[in-house]
Amino acid sequence: MLDDNYYMGLALEEAQKAYRMGEIPIGAVLVINDEVVAKAHNLRETCHDATAHAEVIVIQETCRKLKRWRLTGATLYVTIEPCPMCAGALVNSRVDRLVYGSADYKAGAVESLFNVVQNEALNHRMAVTAGVRGDECSALMKAFFRERRKKKTTNVD
Amino acid sequence: MLDDNYYMGLALEEAQKAYRMGEIPIGAVLVINDEVVAKAHNLRETCHDATAHAEVIVIQETCRKLKRWRLTGATLYVTIEPCPMCAGALVNSRVDRLVYGSADYKAGAVESLFNVVQNEALNHRMAVTAGVRGDECSALMKAFFRERRKKKTTNVD
Repeated sequence: MLDDNYYMGLALEEAQKAYRMGEIPIGAVLVINDEVVAKAHNLRETCHDATAHAEVIVIQETCRKLKRWRLTGATLYVTIEPCPMCAGALVNSRVDRLVYGSADYKAGAVESLFNVVQNEALNHRMAVTAGVRGDECSALMKAFFRERRKKKTTNVD
Repeated sequence: MLDDNYYMGLALEEAQKAYRMGEIPIGAVLVINDEVVAKAHNLRETCHDATAHAEVIVIQETCRKLKRWRLTGATLYVTIEPCPMCAGALVNSRVDRLVYGSADYKAGAVESLFNVVQNEALNHRMAVTAGVRGDECSALMKAFFRERRKKKTTNVD
């Protein structure tokens, strides 16, 4: 059985792909029975689609592959704390477990702004493990935004 | 200029299509400059996709049509208060205004469990009008679940 660090490594590879494309570097992997069913990275700019976050893409791909919308038995790995849309998609698809790297204090919907995935009022809750390879996940985000600010400053000069 | 009652009527027609397919009867319409850009209804069961809610489908379709993820100028009409996933998708796509019919006290993320679409901490907020043709929207839901319970009871007998 492979461990959380291993699967988060795959999510980090996805995040790096996004980085190289100029997309906010977030990657996700969906695992069922120790098998990777889907891997994806943020594609908002490339696809001109506000819903094309890594988590939504792996959920949609898994639903398509398995021909079922209840992803019972699934663990979703993602480098950054999910936003409300993605946290809601995790609840709607009945994912069993969420593992993420680093918190998103501005928009996170697990520990930062809301807790959508473990809300007693909703009809599904999941196990959560936070902080897996968190330093690497947040370092990638920081590098991306540092570079983007630098480019913007250069353009102004 | 057509009014909210008119566009909600189109969303109700979509919800009725879902009803006839055995899908939870929720419909949505996305309008920009008094023009309907996309119409959709819930397709979770048909598409085996937990993200195939009416709101997500109209947002994705509009992004695809306009080739942009920022749906500035858009008003989204939906028969039932959006869930966390859909409310998050509305924020992520920068929709200007949300109009819905009836509240969803079990999973709504506008007035019931959370307020995702007008949260000061998030980087986008929108105008909200609730209760447009709300009785018709909720009557459709009630009829659907009543019928489903009846079928289940019949099957058990």
